[in-house]
Formats: sequence, C-alpha cells, structure tokens
Amino acid sequence: MSTQTTSKLVVVGSVAVDWVITPTAERQESVGGAAVFFSMAAAPLTGVQLVGVIGHDFPGSAIADLEAAGVDLSGLERSDGLTFRWKGRYHENMNSRDTLETHLNVFENFSPKLPAGYRDSDFLFLANIQPSLQLDVLEQMARRPRLVGLDTMNLWIDIAHDKLLEVLARVDVLAINQEEALQLTAETNLVRAARKIRELGPKTLVIKRGEYGALCFGPGGDVFATPALPLEDVVDPTGAGDSFAGGFMGHLARTGEITGENVRKAIIWGSTMASYCVQGFSYDRLRGLSREDVARRYQQFVDLTSF
Amino acid sequence: MSTQTTSKLVVVGSVAVDWVITPTAERQESVGGAAVFFSMAAAPLTGVQLVGVIGHDFPGSAIADLEAAGVDLSGLERSDGLTFRWKGRYHENMNSRDTLETHLNVFENFSPKLPAGYRDSDFLFLANIQPSLQLDVLEQMARRPRLVGLDTMNLWIDIAHDKLLEVLARVDVLAINQEEALQLTAETNLVRAARKIRELGPKTLVIKRGEYGALCFGPGGDVFATPALPLEDVVDPTGAGDSFAGGFMGHLARTGEITGENVRKAIIWGSTMASYCVQGFSYDRLRGLSREDVARRYQQFVDLTSF
Repeated sequence: MSTQTTSKLVVVGSVAVDWVITPTAERQESVGGAAVFFSMAAAPLTGVQLVGVIGHDFPGSAIADLEAAGVDLSGLERSDGLTFRWKGRYHENMNSRDTLETHLNVFENFSPKLPAGYRDSDFLFLANIQPSLQLDVLEQMARRPRLVGLDTMNLWIDIAHDKLLEVLARVDVLAINQEEALQLTAETNLVRAARKIRELGPKTLVIKRGEYGALCFGPGGDVFATPALPLEDVVDPTGAGDSFAGGFMGHLARTGEITGENVRKAIIWGSTMASYCVQGFSYDRLRGLSREDVARRYQQFVDLTSF
Repeated sequence: MSTQTTSKLVVVGSVAVDWVITPTAERQESVGGAAVFFSMAAAPLTGVQLVGVIGHDFPGSAIADLEAAGVDLSGLERSDGLTFRWKGRYHENMNSRDTLETHLNVFENFSPKLPAGYRDSDFLFLANIQPSLQLDVLEQMARRPRLVGLDTMNLWIDIAHDKLLEVLARVDVLAINQEEALQLTAETNLVRAARKIRELGPKTLVIKRGEYGALCFGPGGDVFATPALPLEDVVDPTGAGDSFAGGFMGHLARTGEITGENVRKAIIWGSTMASYCVQGFSYDRLRGLSREDVARRYQQFVDLTSF
C-alpha cells in the first residue's frame, strides 16, 4: 500500500453532537455529523481535509481525535453558538429510527469556505447539505477535481430539486440509499432508477443498502454488488453511510486510480469502514484503526463473498 | 457437468393454482405452489421426484410442462375437488404483498405418500407444509437421506412450534427468510438467530432475502453472502424462494458433493434460478431453460460480485 501516491481528499459536511438512543443503550453528547464520520473512516487509508462548522460546545476531545487521525482541520470553522445537534431513537431492528429533535444551531447559516490549501485537491466529497452550498463549494475549487462524490437526502429532493439537478450534472459519483434513488427518479425499480440517475450526470451510482450491503451502477452497464458483513454487535448505525463514503473515497484518493475495477474495491473499503462504524457509538470503533486492522477486515469481505 | 453422478432428489410441498395481481399486470390460473417452482427450478440441473396433490381443475398443460422438464410425477396424487388456490396482490415495490384469498381445497387433507421409488433418495426437500406432515415424510424414507432441506413459515412457528422443533432436529439445511429466522428465535439480530437455529438441529442455515440476495451460516462459523441479481423486469415474485430452494438442492443433488465450498455454489445456483422465476408469471421463465442458459446466468453472479 505504501508505494502508492496519495491524492488530497476534501470533505464538506455536517459536524454534530448527537444524542442517540438504541433499544439497549443510549449516548448523549455523541460526536457525529457526516464530515466527522467520513473523515474518521477515510483516515486509516488517506489524509482528509475537512470543511465544517462547530459551536463553542463541541468537545475538545473530538478535535484531538480528528487531529490524531491526521485530519486537516484548517477548514473547520469555529462559530458562536451551539454545534448542530440531532437526537434520535432506533427501532428494535436497528434499521429504522425516529428523529426526536433537530437543532441546526451554527449549521443553519453555514457557508463553507475552502482554505487555499484545499482548492487544488483531486478528490472532493460533498456530504449531505443544501445543494446550493454544494454548488458553492464546487465553485471554490481552483480546478475541476479528478473525482467529485455527492450525497443528498429526501429533504433536498423535495424542496431543492432544481438545485440538486444542477449539482448532479457536475459530479462523478452519487452515493445515496435505495429509497432516495427511487424518490429522485419517481421509479419503483432500481435498475431503471439507476439509468435515469446516470443520465442526470453522475457516471457512477452507489446505492447504500445498510445491513444488505451496497450496489453500484457504473459506466458501460457495469453492475457490482456486495452484501454487508453480518455483525452480532450492532451498537449504533448512525454514520454508517458517511463512513461508507469515507472508505470509498479514501481508497480512491489513496490509490489515485479511477477504474471500474478499483471502484469495486473502493465499495468494499466503504463497506469495511461502515462495518466498524456501527459497532460503536460515535466514531469509537473507527478511532485508532491501523492499516493492518482494516486490511484484515477487508479480507473478511473476500471470505464472505467468494464462491 | 456431465461427468458427475446425479443423486435422486425428492420434493414434498404444495401444488397450486394462483391468481396473481401486480401493479402492472395480472394472471388468473397461474400455476404455482412450492413443489412446482422447486421442481421447475431444479429441472435444468437434475431430475426431481415430486410429491403433492392436485384437484380435477389442475391444468393438463402444467402436467405436460413438468413431464417435459423431466420431473417424476408418480408421487403426484389426483384427488376429487379443487386444487389449492391462492390469490394475492403485490405492492408497488414488488417486495410485499397481501393475500386476498386462500382456499386449501384438496391440500387441506393432504397426506403425502412416497412411492417406493422415492424412498431411497439421497436428497430430500421438505417445502413449507405442516411440520407433522414433514415428519411423516421423513418416516417414510427407507433410510436417512444424505441431505434433508426444510422450509417453513410464520404460521407453523406460531401454531405448531413443538412439532417444528422436532423436524428441525432432524434436518441438515433450513432455508427461510429473515423475518422467520428472527421470529423462530425471538431474536432481533440475525447472527445470534443463526447460532440459535444451528443449535436446534440444522447445521446450515440459509436466509433468503429476496431482492437483497441470500446469506448462509454453515459449520465451523462459515458465513457466506451473495446479493441478488438486479433485474429491470420483475414481473411476479411468487415462487422465488421455492425456485431458490430448487436451484440450491438441485446443484447439491447433481454434484453429490456436500462441502462448504459446494454449498456456496449451491446458493449461487439457487439465486440464479430465483432470478429467472421473478421475470415471469408462474414458471414461465423457468420452462425450457438449457444448461447453457443457466450457466450463462450463473456467470452473471460471478461478474456481479467479483472484486
């Protein structure tokens, strides 16, 4: 792994303090947010440059964890007020949840500003924020990155559809869940939804399916699918999709190789990092992972799927 | 493939005439039933000996189709009255359905009788019927088959729990869906459910996940998972699980090789046959498949999952 050149990787997204309730446990002050999960998941693979905003209540220990993982925080804005806070409760099966409270706080007026050292990065991930802000970030790049990844959610599909289409036309990879893909295209069949989405811009569509794994529709009709690793100890699913994106983009940035074959490996890396994420609250299980740790778990996917 | 010795394979289960309504189409008089789907799916791989019951209304064309596929019907009982009939409507996403009508008819007093030529078979599949009948079939075998597979459903878990446990103690492979596995063990986690089920008897548990594929927990902690083939033309999901079982058992009977590695291949064969099943009403797409056809589709699973 060490012989390869690592490209710079920027992530723009939420930084949050969550209050997570599961059927068997609960954590208040659980540090989360898409940009945090993404960064902690990509960190064992490559360096990450984070863009986000926090309030005065954001734990110093989380700053220290991000720094220890090698995450560049020069794009992390400190603002007056409280950090974005989300409170949610997972159902018995851990697959669905209810949002109990959302307080945008300093995230409400977030306007991402990329430090000069971020603007020439070759890999950019636009986590789930307003499409207009995602466009704004694209404009700030000194040149078109080699690969731009995007996440979004049902809210933006509903209330910012046109802006979302503008962003979609300018990205390479869209990584969303199955329901979002169907909603975005008003389809009931995923294969048809994938075709429509790829016509909107992104040449590669990655469908995140939670406990069922991931599915990828790429150029030339290429389709790849992987199951998720069956886990006995699912503690907290929060951030799994963002961790998936971190592993996915982290592998592509580390190898610098954008081919169909390497995108398949990137999906396994995404699945690998997501599998760690759900085994603890916050980024507990992602912290301190070595290259050897993650390579061993990657191998579990080989063992799981070989026939 | 032709160099291998094929063992005999018996299936016991329902033979039905369904009335299937999907969001875009409908078929009355759609021949179905677990034993029919199983047999038509196994037929391209190996010979099948069917045990079931029909009424006077069962279409002669379906008898001809089963015979043309090489299915041994000497265990198919002709009874006075009407064939088992089921009417159901699929929801928009094709994953869930409502039962509109169920008429057991001649199936209500079905008492499976194995012809002499079936009793020494090495492979036996007990499709979803009352556990007491499944036990009865086991008793009729001249000797313990090399491999016994079992399906069941939520109804028997509810109302015939003790009898079901008796059957479970005597089978090698249980093939059920995820919800049934959780219900059977009163668990919310599939890995824990699998451990409990394997303690009840079956050394191998196959979880059928519909559009998400299949998962297998085998001896020695071996875990295997495969996604399903993404399909654009899902016409009618009825019988997909039974077709899976037919492909799975058909491969094992054809090769005669019961190893962890070959069970993985059998799961891909099951997935292959299920993918055909859902592309048409009844067994339309399973009829007339050649070895070359199915081998090509098996290869699609290799292409889908390789990384």
